[in-house]
Amino acid sequence: MRVCDLPTPALVLDRKRLERNIARMADRAANLGVTLRPHAKTHKCLEVARRQVAAGACGLTVSTLAEADAFSTAGFDDLTWAVPLAPSRLADVERVAARARLGILVDALAAVAALDRRGGSFDVWIKVDCGYHRAGVDSQSDEAARLARSIAEGGHVFRGLLTHSGQAYDCASRAELAVVAEHERRVMVELAERMRGDGIEVPVVSVGSTPAMSAAHDLAGVDEVRPGNYVFFDASQVALGACALTDCAVTVIAEVISNGGGRHAVINAGALALSKDLGPGDCGYGRIYEDYEAGALHDDTTVVELSQEHGEVTGSFDLGERLRIQPNHSCLTSAAFGAYSVVEGDEVVDRWPVVRGW
Amino acid sequence: MRVCDLPTPALVLDRKRLERNIARMADRAANLGVTLRPHAKTHKCLEVARRQVAAGACGLTVSTLAEADAFSTAGFDDLTWAVPLAPSRLADVERVAARARLGILVDALAAVAALDRRGGSFDVWIKVDCGYHRAGVDSQSDEAARLARSIAEGGHVFRGLLTHSGQAYDCASRAELAVVAEHERRVMVELAERMRGDGIEVPVVSVGSTPAMSAAHDLAGVDEVRPGNYVFFDASQVALGACALTDCAVTVIAEVISNGGGRHAVINAGALALSKDLGPGDCGYGRIYEDYEAGALHDDTTVVELSQEHGEVTGSFDLGERLRIQPNHSCLTSAAFGAYSVVEGDEVVDRWPVVRGW
Repeated sequence: MRVCDLPTPALVLDRKRLERNIARMADRAANLGVTLRPHAKTHKCLEVARRQVAAGACGLTVSTLAEADAFSTAGFDDLTWAVPLAPSRLADVERVAARARLGILVDALAAVAALDRRGGSFDVWIKVDCGYHRAGVDSQSDEAARLARSIAEGGHVFRGLLTHSGQAYDCASRAELAVVAEHERRVMVELAERMRGDGIEVPVVSVGSTPAMSAAHDLAGVDEVRPGNYVFFDASQVALGACALTDCAVTVIAEVISNGGGRHAVINAGALALSKDLGPGDCGYGRIYEDYEAGALHDDTTVVELSQEHGEVTGSFDLGERLRIQPNHSCLTSAAFGAYSVVEGDEVVDRWPVVRGW
Repeated sequence: MRVCDLPTPALVLDRKRLERNIARMADRAANLGVTLRPHAKTHKCLEVARRQVAAGACGLTVSTLAEADAFSTAGFDDLTWAVPLAPSRLADVERVAARARLGILVDALAAVAALDRRGGSFDVWIKVDCGYHRAGVDSQSDEAARLARSIAEGGHVFRGLLTHSGQAYDCASRAELAVVAEHERRVMVELAERMRGDGIEVPVVSVGSTPAMSAAHDLAGVDEVRPGNYVFFDASQVALGACALTDCAVTVIAEVISNGGGRHAVINAGALALSKDLGPGDCGYGRIYEDYEAGALHDDTTVVELSQEHGEVTGSFDLGERLRIQPNHSCLTSAAFGAYSVVEGDEVVDRWPVVRGW
């Protein structure tokens, strides 16, 4: 089958770009002297994860227990669930941990208490806030030390300190990204050194976000990085300066289904296909390629409005014309589909399922 | 199982409210003298559709060919695919049409030409713009007449005129909704009468949106209505005046997984569970119930930020505390999950799958 024969809407994954992105980040991690534990939340796909591990990834990061379940069943034996523990899911954690090493995250004594009540021994990471201010212990406080002691006292395994530099998504340039990456490194290494000075063994310092990892110059003292989005990249990463448009490996192909009374083109990719992520500045809900291979976008053509199954695109196109759309946020868009149509140039060469749900 | 034992995040469907909503809209359609063809895009669920048909629905409206496929396979034999035809999907249309009556939508001669090129006879509705300005022919022009003649010349079956008053979602009161409903009715009936005066048989005039249907006083000249959201309602419909909060039948139960360094509570329902639909004014990405049965919301507690699997909620909650969230847009939220946990009060009584994809 050829790309132009795919039923629309289609989630298209460019195999060559994917493999190049995987190889580059593997090289980058090796050059920076850190192991790579890619975040599988972006792809949720066994075939992509296999390529990451083949390129040297030490294991995977997952965002859901559904991913942990699917990846461990498929033989991936070293996983970190990088979302703070939901106590109601401990039975699922145990099920996965029976067949793979599964690290879980805590940022509060109450979470360790929940593990103690459950009984048994868990592999536990301490989530640290390095400036994103979403979750995690204050890196300047002694909360991490208290947590580490509580983890040890409960008979659990303290895996290390983990953070996510999500604040990198607010940067405006590669120079700013490098500053965030260095701040993330420094905060984490200083905390680890302080804890070590207090006699606490900190086995691993784990950091990462795709934009920070794309710009980091030095990761001295860091052991592991967990970028995720780099496998696919997207319009948001281009705007951040983390990649070139020709690195973006996931696109959506939709079809023009109406000319909207001459006001706009209507396509059959709406909020369920593209997500309502507005992404960076002027992208609307997605930009349209004029020439995908060359990385050329239509100048003034944007997905400006989304309802459930309709997208409104500026510009004039013919009924049935296929538009290749660069999503703002490849993680949310990929999770909307049941499978990737894997392509090489104009040929559809494979179909890889997406592991959805929780 | 009880609601408090559901693994989180959970999509919870209140069976009593669902059945009350179905009965009320069925009564409303009967009182207004129109048949009801509910839009299944909201629920994407066979069990809900069975209840709608048992309450008198003449058939179903669907938003995707995946829904058309699943519903026709399950025995639903009268479907309208209420999104303008994507020519690349004609083989799928034919597959469904081999086992059920499947109406398709066109708003351009080029679409009829695509049917003619394909060969065979299709059931065709003409999509009319009644003021939403998303898709559809201009109701004041003679485009609908030209299309109807072209449909007949191609040997297809002209099913009627169909519109969607999506502009009702911009209203600020029930009185404004009634004005939109009357405008939709008048535009469509006048067009049908004009075409009939020109010798064109218009078998059915089909209108509808949940907000307009909740406020319409008179549907003289209309044959069929296609509201969808009314089965579940949501915060957007409450804000529009289309329902009470105690009519909302779908909620998400999430769990507190971090206190965010004291800044906010973090829950395990993010953009993939709730969607990034901002809904009406001050709801953020969702409001939290203090007492679901009574329809009481926490005063100052809102989901203010979403990343892929994290939600940030204003206010202070304990780790593991379960929050019941009223989504802004039940259609997008329901489509994010693989199944409904169906509840009656505190008891989980069933699990109904969601038909996703395209």
